[in-house]
Amino acid sequence: MITVEEAEQLIASRLEPLPSETVSIENAAERVLMESLQADRDLPPFNRSTFDGIALSYGAIEQGQRAFPIVGTGFAGSPKLELTDPKTCVEIMTGAPLPDNADCVVKIEDLDIENGSARIKDGVSLSIGYGVHPQASDSAKGRTLLERGCRLSAKELSVAASIGKAALVVSKQPRISILTTGDELVAVEASPLPHQIRRSNDLALQTALQAAGYTNVSRSHIVDDLEETQHAVTSVLKRADVLILAGGVSKGKRDFLPEALEAAGVDKAFQWISQRPGKPLWFGDCKRDGRRTYVFALPGNPVSCFTCLHRYVLPALDRLCGKRPGEARYAKLASEFQFKPPLTLFLPVLLSSDSSGQSWAEPLPFNTSGDYISVARTQGFIELPKDEINFAKGAPFPFTPWSI
Amino acid sequence: MITVEEAEQLIASRLEPLPSETVSIENAAERVLMESLQADRDLPPFNRSTFDGIALSYGAIEQGQRAFPIVGTGFAGSPKLELTDPKTCVEIMTGAPLPDNADCVVKIEDLDIENGSARIKDGVSLSIGYGVHPQASDSAKGRTLLERGCRLSAKELSVAASIGKAALVVSKQPRISILTTGDELVAVEASPLPHQIRRSNDLALQTALQAAGYTNVSRSHIVDDLEETQHAVTSVLKRADVLILAGGVSKGKRDFLPEALEAAGVDKAFQWISQRPGKPLWFGDCKRDGRRTYVFALPGNPVSCFTCLHRYVLPALDRLCGKRPGEARYAKLASEFQFKPPLTLFLPVLLSSDSSGQSWAEPLPFNTSGDYISVARTQGFIELPKDEINFAKGAPFPFTPWSI
Repeated sequence: MITVEEAEQLIASRLEPLPSETVSIENAAERVLMESLQADRDLPPFNRSTFDGIALSYGAIEQGQRAFPIVGTGFAGSPKLELTDPKTCVEIMTGAPLPDNADCVVKIEDLDIENGSARIKDGVSLSIGYGVHPQASDSAKGRTLLERGCRLSAKELSVAASIGKAALVVSKQPRISILTTGDELVAVEASPLPHQIRRSNDLALQTALQAAGYTNVSRSHIVDDLEETQHAVTSVLKRADVLILAGGVSKGKRDFLPEALEAAGVDKAFQWISQRPGKPLWFGDCKRDGRRTYVFALPGNPVSCFTCLHRYVLPALDRLCGKRPGEARYAKLASEFQFKPPLTLFLPVLLSSDSSGQSWAEPLPFNTSGDYISVARTQGFIELPKDEINFAKGAPFPFTPWSI
Repeated sequence: MITVEEAEQLIASRLEPLPSETVSIENAAERVLMESLQADRDLPPFNRSTFDGIALSYGAIEQGQRAFPIVGTGFAGSPKLELTDPKTCVEIMTGAPLPDNADCVVKIEDLDIENGSARIKDGVSLSIGYGVHPQASDSAKGRTLLERGCRLSAKELSVAASIGKAALVVSKQPRISILTTGDELVAVEASPLPHQIRRSNDLALQTALQAAGYTNVSRSHIVDDLEETQHAVTSVLKRADVLILAGGVSKGKRDFLPEALEAAGVDKAFQWISQRPGKPLWFGDCKRDGRRTYVFALPGNPVSCFTCLHRYVLPALDRLCGKRPGEARYAKLASEFQFKPPLTLFLPVLLSSDSSGQSWAEPLPFNTSGDYISVARTQGFIELPKDEINFAKGAPFPFTPWSI
């Protein structure tokens, strides 16, 4: 058996980043940016008014002038005006370019406007640059605004839009195939016989992958038969970048997967990790025609399967796509906990944040069943190190959230 | 001006839940469940073996027997067997039904199997129920497993799958229209003139809505013209449940929205909130042919727009869809902060979680620009109460994450 850390390293050592492609900004949400983006011009590109009001020269105010004849109006979207006479002012709207020779904006709330003249109310204090969002103050032209490896959410896409990147270079979506096994499993819509149960791992895996931004996912279910398993695996290896299997990987008489995978030419990197749940996790890869397929065979037990997806498969997909790793999260144990086996424990927890911003992880009453029913109440799992037995209330541990 | 709390209450007082619809479980991800779901049978439905090994009667072990002739094999997915002779055993696979009269499973690792007989290794300790996941231990038939109002992520869908709910009653997706205004704004792919800038609010709003699960979103851009604005608003009111406008809502000469909205028959609930950013936020609704459209007119300044979406619009959408509110989150200020105006401040922050699980919020160097460039570095905003000026390092405040 290898440790969790060894398993992580063995996976990482085999991964080769996927190629990139160019997509329209409209279709780039949740993808990983594979170029760095620079400002194509100063941002803002001109001195911009931040209020509705008047633009004028502060020098005139300093000399005691309080009323200014209005000689023009500057709208957002209209070309920049010029203040030719510093004793006059230009009416200006939020977002409009500040006229040349103007250096101050007075808000409409601070003015009395009458007969084409704007009078500054008593007690209003102003300064050079007041009400002006200066050219290049957000970014000078050429500055890097988004780094390669960032995930594109609304705010990053808005930055890309503001610098005219209508198409973006992103890593390709990995083609993911899910194959579930297990003769006891029937379809959701079936009426199970007393000894049968309904499938749920396939839907859980696909939905969690999609929530994490991995949308190119297909799935099918195979019966526990060596030949059929081998056939299905061989066929998937031709088209998928990542194959995720669930079930059939342990020591049972119909656990055909390790054999079928090796027969299909998948090179095993490891099996058996000193962890609970998920001890039988199998990982390997297969190189054909210059293309690699990574194979994760997860245990069929639902909690094992879901935990291994989050602990190993999702981070591997992020790496394949060149995504920079996020910050680790931690939570304190809300009640003391004991675990004797010399295994790393992935413990599903109810996560809460108290009113001081401290995260607390409350373990569920211990349940070996591994069913989704208990998992559904939790927000993720904490990771308790191997070779410790007593975990004190208040001790912090790494927390991994479920993909939602 | 009203307060943030008054604005929230005025919005809530007008919202009427959207109707429900039935969708296939395959299409239910991220939707809000509008029924409660009960176990359709005991879960697990039978005493289930949790190991590969042998099933036997613990009584025989108690009487000193260590070797058991194997009289059959129980596979997952095969009907339940019966242990007719308590001095024998049945080979059993993980997930298979425990044979009648058996009450204990011995792991394959703890056995020597030879000539059709399984011998329990020395030192292995067992008990009644060992290796058995008892019928109904996850849930008795009839127990409620998912409550109305929960959002359906992978784990909830898996529970629904396990109880055979191939179709689910969920709240309808609100039909959302985004209308952006501003003559200075050109399309992403355009080459802006010196006084023009590129649009980004429309994409930011749509992407953030979609990331929050609201996928029925259309958007268009209109010029700053009263007639065109009125026409566009009237047309959207016929088909949308929620209209989100950005820009044109303040006091400028081309801020036609308040007028256009009232002319189109939208009943204003409020405008002007004592907050920064987002003071000009306008909210109202319109009832026609028994159908309501809710109208949020957000300021055009990108940070105002994005903040108001997260602070008011997304919570209102969740309410419309009957979603139970999530837990509030908090973070401690990582450095002291001053803010003098008598306004609630929504302050974008870099959020981090330290290795003890404490969340910290680091404000960006203060920037009135309101551009997405600075927002892109943050994870959300904290809310600093109105009528306080000095905010101490270490003081906790509510934190709202950006939708990603």
